[in-house]
Order: sequence, then structure tokens, then C-alpha cells
Amino acid sequence: MKIAVDAMGGDHAPQAIVEGVMLARKEFPEMQFQLYGDETQIKAYLTDETNIQIIHTDEKINSDDEPVKAIRRKKQASMVLAAQAVKNGEADAIFSAGNTGALLAAGLFIVGRIKGIERPGLLSTMPVMGQTTGFDMLDLGANADNKAEHLVQYAILGSFYANNVRGITKPRVGLLNNGTEETKGSELTKKTFELLSSEPNIHFIGNVEARDLLNGAADVVVTDGFTGNAVLKSIEGTALNIVSLLKQSILDSGLKGKLGALLLKDALKGLKNEMDYAKYGGAVLFGLKAPVVKTHGSTGPEAVATTIRQIHAMLETKVVEKLVTQFEQKTSE
Amino acid sequence: MKIAVDAMGGDHAPQAIVEGVMLARKEFPEMQFQLYGDETQIKAYLTDETNIQIIHTDEKINSDDEPVKAIRRKKQASMVLAAQAVKNGEADAIFSAGNTGALLAAGLFIVGRIKGIERPGLLSTMPVMGQTTGFDMLDLGANADNKAEHLVQYAILGSFYANNVRGITKPRVGLLNNGTEETKGSELTKKTFELLSSEPNIHFIGNVEARDLLNGAADVVVTDGFTGNAVLKSIEGTALNIVSLLKQSILDSGLKGKLGALLLKDALKGLKNEMDYAKYGGAVLFGLKAPVVKTHGSTGPEAVATTIRQIHAMLETKVVEKLVTQFEQKTSE
Repeated sequence: MKIAVDAMGGDHAPQAIVEGVMLARKEFPEMQFQLYGDETQIKAYLTDETNIQIIHTDEKINSDDEPVKAIRRKKQASMVLAAQAVKNGEADAIFSAGNTGALLAAGLFIVGRIKGIERPGLLSTMPVMGQTTGFDMLDLGANADNKAEHLVQYAILGSFYANNVRGITKPRVGLLNNGTEETKGSELTKKTFELLSSEPNIHFIGNVEARDLLNGAADVVVTDGFTGNAVLKSIEGTALNIVSLLKQSILDSGLKGKLGALLLKDALKGLKNEMDYAKYGGAVLFGLKAPVVKTHGSTGPEAVATTIRQIHAMLETKVVEKLVTQFEQKTSE
Repeated sequence: MKIAVDAMGGDHAPQAIVEGVMLARKEFPEMQFQLYGDETQIKAYLTDETNIQIIHTDEKINSDDEPVKAIRRKKQASMVLAAQAVKNGEADAIFSAGNTGALLAAGLFIVGRIKGIERPGLLSTMPVMGQTTGFDMLDLGANADNKAEHLVQYAILGSFYANNVRGITKPRVGLLNNGTEETKGSELTKKTFELLSSEPNIHFIGNVEARDLLNGAADVVVTDGFTGNAVLKSIEGTALNIVSLLKQSILDSGLKGKLGALLLKDALKGLKNEMDYAKYGGAVLFGLKAPVVKTHGSTGPEAVATTIRQIHAMLETKVVEKLVTQFEQKTSE
């Protein structure tokens, strides 16, 4: 098992990346890590090179680079070299905490789509409040416009992921819609509902509303990339705002409030943990020939290690190979 | 100023509605209230009939009735009679806490669109965290599919509302998109961006992301009804989940947690108030010949009174008449 790591992507790179890789190395001694980036900087945080190979490059993609241009022009960038390694069969998966758009482009143009999958989707496991299991949602924004046929593929992709990587038997697939009734929806969701209802390979449970996602309305939620992106950002924005508002309210309420907050420390910590979806790993551009996984740019070593655990699960369960077989059958039918 | 009130709509009708009307009556002695519904039930909560007229009917629309069918078949329903009164010029606006879909249908089919407005949009004022002003967003789900031209009309409608009803000079209009860069978006948002950029009657500030809405990214946010509905429900669902999770965390953390919560009572109350968007009134189906306004089915008397205050502002500022003039000019251009 070989992972190509973009050591230079993310706000705290390469330190957080290197430290995360060292954490993961302890857990998975069978894994080989290829670290792409500035050798001197990487070595500064590396205790030893067991199971680690450094591939030096001076070039990197910045967070504000225009994605497609960056991939095409910065041919020696750490992210591009890592994607090339996957393409050439030198690595089995790629990890990055860098520019999301660039990683999506690298995934599509360098690693490549599985034959039969039209539009790979960005998938994340999101938290279900009060439960240890989460739900998988896609597309979270790899595409701005989707057809009903793409959403059906997302249902299959999501089911494979939930079943293999998260161990959920017969995952319940829900279609994000503006009402739960069968007749509800836009032209896109109405057509998708019809197609999903007659799709034999998934367990379709009908429409789900955005309000019920965090309550575990489904194990897999499919939607077009534009809506998925808006919903994800709404959830993030609301959660962040409430937490910062709560902090402000506590500060404003003087000594009494501060004492109260001190007593509530454990409860607030529990809340933070429930809401933390870095605990499920990163976002996968799913539908490609190999795992292409992205974590938040701001993540620390722990989240890097969690994401590598997620990649390990994807490789061990051979979820991508199973998808290839599934879609080969489909296309030859 | 005459308001047609559907006294039978909502979970706590007619009590909450009647009590809310009595609160509003004190504030606005110039307003006449027509209460449509069961006379005996209404009278049970009415102290006296000053400025109040009861129009008795046995029929009402239930929350689970199919909207368009209900409007067509239940011709004597309190909501239908109230909408008819507006159509016939016997009332200036309609208020209901009942079936949202039915009220939208009653608005469209009975009250009717302003000439030149293709698709009226559902508008709500939502809270901006830490500020007393909110932002107006539309369409929140009156339509499942929208064209770019509709979104341009929403920008004009929203600007008129923010300016007249909320007193905001030159309201900043943002287009909800999956990135802030000009080049971002779906086919719909890219086309809308182009049209909004050359629209003289609004102050367009570009794309806004769902993550930044509650931070006050714009005074008016326009989007298609499908996305708007998903974003609204995501915000609601996330807020409700966090609050109930916080409560659960406090309960689980024993005596210490409960004491902490007691000390934090004021802070938590402040948080609840910040998040409460009933304080801005109800949702307006905007673009019709008269104000058609809906509050949450679960609202109590206070929220009913707040919504009547909102209707009062709409009537007093003549925002609908101004829209009629604006769109008449447009269509005759």
C-alpha cells in the first residue's frame, strides 16, 4: 500500500502533514508514504525515514492559484507529481490538504475517471447528531450542473462507499429534495426520483429534506453539486456562527457567565466533538481510478492521520476496484 | 388599513391568532381586522370586538391537505375566503399561519401576480448574527425551477423590500453561488451574474457563499427556489440540532453542568434571541398584488403580532404599489 502525499498543501504544511504521516505510520506499518515537496522543510519535522520516501520538488500550488491553470502550468508542483505517481502506478492513492479545485482537476485530468462514470462527485461523511455513525453526501461541489443520470451514479457510488468503507449493510439512499412527498421537486429531482426508484443496485428510501440531514434521515444523500455545496456551506456557516455567538454571549455575561462556561466545559467539549466532521476523514473525489482525498487546509496532524486511516480503509476494502467491476458490467450490458 | 386574517391556520389556532391580533390592535388602532373562521371558537378568546369583524365559516384547510386541490375544492375555507376578500378589494392584505403550499396557491391563483412579474418569490428576513439588521433572501421555495430572468426580478423585489420595509438605503444585493469569484457557478448563476451586472435599478455586489450569509454578506440574497429552500432548511436544521445537542450535553454532564447552565441562562437566552427570526415577521410571497404573509404554524401570539407589524409596514410604505409602478414601466419600455 503506497500513498502519494502532497506534503506542501494546506495552511500548516509541511509540518502538520509530516507529523500526521508519522502518526499514521505507527498505526499502519505496512503502508509506504511518498512525500512530495521541499526536502529540507520536510526533513525538519521527520524523526526518521522508516517507510517514508521523500521526492523533492521546489514547486507547489498555492491556495489562490486558478485550479486548472495551476495543474497545467506547474508541472513540477508537489500535488501534480503526487497525482502523476498514482497515474503511473507508483502509488495507490493521493492525499492533499491543498487547493481543493486544483486537486479536483488533478484527479480528473491526471488520475482519471473510472470508465462508465460520467461525473465523479465530491463525497464527505458528515456527522449525525447524537450518533457515532454519520452519513455520506455527494456531490458537494465537484460539478456545478448535474443531470439526473449523474445523481443515479452518485447513489451507486455513495452506497459502495457507505457499505465498504463505513461497513453499513444496505445503506439507505435519500434524494435531497424540497419536500418528502414523491411528487415534490424540481425537474431534476423529479426525474432522478423516477430513475432511482427503478435502480436495482441501491436501497432508495425516497426524498429527504435538508432540515433532517443531521438527524440521520439517510445513510447516503445524493444531490447536484451546486445544491450540495450550498447545503454543506450553510451547515458549516450556521455551526460556526452559533459557536462564536455562544462564546460572545458568555464573554458579555460577565463573571457569572464565565463561571458557568467553566462548569460547562465538558458539555461544550462534547458538543464540539459531535459537530467535528474531521473525525470521519476528508472529502473524496469519488469515481476516479484511485482514492483522491482532500482534508481541510487548516487541519492538524490528528486530522491528517484520520484521513490516512480513511484512505487505508478505501484501499483495504478495494472499493475502487469493486466500482470498476460494477461500472464495467453496466457499460457492457 | 384592513387585514384579512385566516384565524384557523396554525397549530395553536384560533387562540394564538386571536390573541396576537388583540396585541396588534393595541399598537395599531387604525387597523381593521377581518377574522375568518369558526365564530364560537374565535369569540372564546376575544375580549371585545373593537376594530374586529368575524366572518364565520365551518371549513378550513389542514396542514396535510394537498395545496392546490385544497384551494380549489374547499371554497369556504377560512384561508380561501380571506384571499377572496383581498381579491375583491375588501381587505388590503392576508395573514395566515396555516398550510404554506395552500397559501402560496391562494396568493397566486386568487390574489394574483403583479403584471410583469413572472414568478413571485418567497421572501424572509433572516438574522445576521451579532447585528440587529437581518438580510432578505428569496426565493425560499415558492418555485422549484427558476430562470435567470426570475432571479433578476428577485433582486429588484428584494431591494424594494429591504429599502421600503426595512429602511435600508441602497441595499447590497448578492447572488448565492458556489464561490465568490465572478467566473464561478452553474449555468443559471453565471447567466444571472451577467444580467445582474447590467441591471440599473439595483446595487449588485457580486456572488456570496452560503457560509457567509449569517455574517451579513449582503442585505438581499437572491437564489432559485430549490437552492433557497435547501439553504433555509439547512440553517434551521443545524441550529435546532446544535441547540438540542447542547441541552443534551448539559443534562449528561450532571449537577456541575446544570449549575453551569443556570449561570449561563442569560447568555443562552441572548443566543436564542439572536437566532430567532420570527422577530422579523413572517415569510412574504412577494410579487403579488397585495401582501400575502405566512408565519410558522407553531408561532404564538407575540409572533402573530410581529407579523402584523410587518404587514403594517408593507401597507404604510406602499411597497406593493411602488412595485406595480416599477414593473408597469418595465413592461411598457
